[in-house]
Amino acid sequence: MSLSAGSSPLHSPKITPHTSPAPRRRSHTPNPASFMVPPSASTPANNPVPQTPSSGQVIQKETVGGTTYFYTDTTPAPLTGMVFPNYHIYPPTAPHVAYMQPKANAPSFFMADELRQELINRHLITMAQIDQADMPAVPTEVDSYHSLFPLEPLPPPNRIQKSSNFGYITSCYKAVNSKDDLPYCLRRIHGFRLVNTKCMVLVDMWKKIQHSNIVTLREVFTTKAFAEPSLVFAYDFHAGGETMMSRHFNDPNADAYFTKRKWGQHDGPLPRQHAGLLPESLIWAYIVQLSSALRTIHTAGLACRVMDPTKILITGKTRLRVNCVGVFDVLTFDNSQNNNPLALMAQYQQADLISLGKVVLALACNSLAGIQRENLQKAMELVTINYSSDLKNLILYLLTDQNRMRSVNDIMPMIGARFYTQLDAAQMRNDVIEEDLAKLDAGVPEKISLISRDEKSVLVVTYSDLKRCFENTFQELIAAANGQL
Amino acid sequence: MSLSAGSSPLHSPKITPHTSPAPRRRSHTPNPASFMVPPSASTPANNPVPQTPSSGQVIQKETVGGTTYFYTDTTPAPLTGMVFPNYHIYPPTAPHVAYMQPKANAPSFFMADELRQELINRHLITMAQIDQADMPAVPTEVDSYHSLFPLEPLPPPNRIQKSSNFGYITSCYKAVNSKDDLPYCLRRIHGFRLVNTKCMVLVDMWKKIQHSNIVTLREVFTTKAFAEPSLVFAYDFHAGGETMMSRHFNDPNADAYFTKRKWGQHDGPLPRQHAGLLPESLIWAYIVQLSSALRTIHTAGLACRVMDPTKILITGKTRLRVNCVGVFDVLTFDNSQNNNPLALMAQYQQADLISLGKVVLALACNSLAGIQRENLQKAMELVTINYSSDLKNLILYLLTDQNRMRSVNDIMPMIGARFYTQLDAAQMRNDVIEEDLAKLDAGVPEKISLISRDEKSVLVVTYSDLKRCFENTFQELIAAANGQL
Repeated sequence: MSLSAGSSPLHSPKITPHTSPAPRRRSHTPNPASFMVPPSASTPANNPVPQTPSSGQVIQKETVGGTTYFYTDTTPAPLTGMVFPNYHIYPPTAPHVAYMQPKANAPSFFMADELRQELINRHLITMAQIDQADMPAVPTEVDSYHSLFPLEPLPPPNRIQKSSNFGYITSCYKAVNSKDDLPYCLRRIHGFRLVNTKCMVLVDMWKKIQHSNIVTLREVFTTKAFAEPSLVFAYDFHAGGETMMSRHFNDPNADAYFTKRKWGQHDGPLPRQHAGLLPESLIWAYIVQLSSALRTIHTAGLACRVMDPTKILITGKTRLRVNCVGVFDVLTFDNSQNNNPLALMAQYQQADLISLGKVVLALACNSLAGIQRENLQKAMELVTINYSSDLKNLILYLLTDQNRMRSVNDIMPMIGARFYTQLDAAQMRNDVIEEDLAKLDAGVPEKISLISRDEKSVLVVTYSDLKRCFENTFQELIAAANGQL
Repeated sequence: MSLSAGSSPLHSPKITPHTSPAPRRRSHTPNPASFMVPPSASTPANNPVPQTPSSGQVIQKETVGGTTYFYTDTTPAPLTGMVFPNYHIYPPTAPHVAYMQPKANAPSFFMADELRQELINRHLITMAQIDQADMPAVPTEVDSYHSLFPLEPLPPPNRIQKSSNFGYITSCYKAVNSKDDLPYCLRRIHGFRLVNTKCMVLVDMWKKIQHSNIVTLREVFTTKAFAEPSLVFAYDFHAGGETMMSRHFNDPNADAYFTKRKWGQHDGPLPRQHAGLLPESLIWAYIVQLSSALRTIHTAGLACRVMDPTKILITGKTRLRVNCVGVFDVLTFDNSQNNNPLALMAQYQQADLISLGKVVLALACNSLAGIQRENLQKAMELVTINYSSDLKNLILYLLTDQNRMRSVNDIMPMIGARFYTQLDAAQMRNDVIEEDLAKLDAGVPEKISLISRDEKSVLVVTYSDLKRCFENTFQELIAAANGQL
């Protein structure tokens, strides 16, 4: 068995990472020389089995595992005087990433090391399973899903849980869909019997919405796999997400800061610093994302209805996704609107904008107490003292003067140049992740293909398998050397 | 020597990717179980050397390579009934990436496979070197830079080259700075003698600008390392970038489409489709990025002065960066403005906005012929027929009515909701790259650390080294078994 580690694109690999050779070889051959070579200067590379078909292109032929692959190779020969490395080495970080400075007015994001930890963490969560023997209440299969893993403690049947979850007892599981083997998040509504299927028109509309700030709804079904009849909403699974409630409104000290301070009485120096408050750049990063989600939803003729800290997922440092879309549309579907499930949408859309205003005000106060009706004046005073007039005006637009129709488009001018800030941050983040993808040492061993010399056999193994195999061979050989075999 | 492949964060690795253990261990320990565990339920993990200092936190102690590392470990014990994988396996692609659909109104970006090819390509370009013997004209060292590699054919001294390059013969090299071992792009101005150093005030201002759509200027110096005295601008190196000129304005057929068609005469059916023209979404993606760069530059009190297709770099599918900033500020520095290098900035900023208008119009016409003065009416007719009124109004704002002062801020309302489109695309791209970073099989073997059992020795090797070592040992053992040693 010939072992040759590595796969520089300039030579044919024998140990390659686990990828079917077909798509790799058929795809565009990287052409490091072409950026200096005019197309007319291209010459066919000196490759193992070049054949010149009628098209004039050089076709490469390779048989792997009994299968012969043909692919076009357009690699020009490197120019005289140019040397490309034929060994494996990591290029250094590009300077624009190596010297990247955090920007004061931009939301922060994970730099390489943190991102790597975050990704490893997400993997573990994605791969986590339960020991079925310890959790007999979790069924082995629900519709086409298996390997259910509870994402929240199984709920005690109390009213608080109900009130923050659509008025029903709910539970939430990671599960794998056997149709595509991908992980999904199942939101189960306990004891709900679907009597009217007309609301499925809305579910179909939701399923078409793909947006980077919305958790996509994939399907809704009823099941008897649990102890009681249940309705299940299947969403994309975003490993490691936490709710805005848990990230930002879970700190009693922050609440105390808002509730104990007598904002109206000027009984001391007003806080010039945002002591204990969130940076304005973070609040705008959230506003841009939430308004982006609302804009897409409203443009599609739907209403969000879950613009609430308990239903907004945060992954990484600042990425938001609106979760649980479509649940209210099914659970509160009113028989009286039988003929038009969309009848109340305009009204719900207005409610969405008020809800957005409340989320923003709560973030600015760093406390849910700020959005209680009796605290509104105090809360607005806090905003006036600590944040820009744009932020204050946005909250006022969303929360006051309720006689006129609001539109999510009206808040764009208040966001203004902050769009540029968000885009710059997103692009810088792209640069960091790309560099990280380039330099990678995340500690996740790759699977590799071991291909026998006659290319009839392919073994796909992990490096752990490889090591065990080497160790066994080693032991056998030592034993043989000692005459024990 | 004990070999144990892999490094699940849940156990102490013996073979780890090549990273100093210190930063990895000191960083936040991933805590896959914590998303289900309320903070009060956390219990210290059962770890090798737990010690309880006064703070009450559990400190872990580990000696690696003769050095003892201390770090805080807050990993709670996994809940009963939960099983995390202790083997290595790739989680599948998350559904939001697996089922991602291209959006009609958004710029496209590299999906995983293409991105990987692009990154491999960039690596090769970054690592490429010349054979010094074949290119004796390229010096081995220029100031603190070495390993120069020409990025453009060495220029013949002709007027066309001069006119598109600041009126001078220029050349361009990738080079490595010996101070930080990072790759940079050197733009050399042949035969330029710097007589007045007051313009260095502007260079210092440029060096402070960090923006995802601007190639950062790092330093400017004079050198005698080449055959003639030269001035060198050192920029960040963006491997694989090509100019907008080469990407979009290098196709004679596209020019013919614009120049041969008699737009004014209505002598046939007007093109309803954008046959041969760029998608409007791409043009807006460019507008957002270029206006973002201009906004940052103007806000800093500078002017771009290189808003030109030959000076705009494109990497990947749609990322733009304005290149060669600061060159004009040095080369055309006027002694008469001796006391105020910033005197002409307002005027140059106005010129930037006209230049932006020309770039946009040329993109819309898909031909540089569109921005010739005599073609302007024809060009605007093409825009009116094929693109939105927002795009037309933006071009008119930038190119006509030259009596009033323009501001880059004025075009924000014309971009409007397209900011959301760009952000959504950037975030989706982030998701794709992150997934790719998670799942990675780019064929670049990792370096690994082999740590001896007594932890006194650390070997950093590639898998190629490892394989060679195994093979040698194997051969020696076979020889020993055969009694040849």
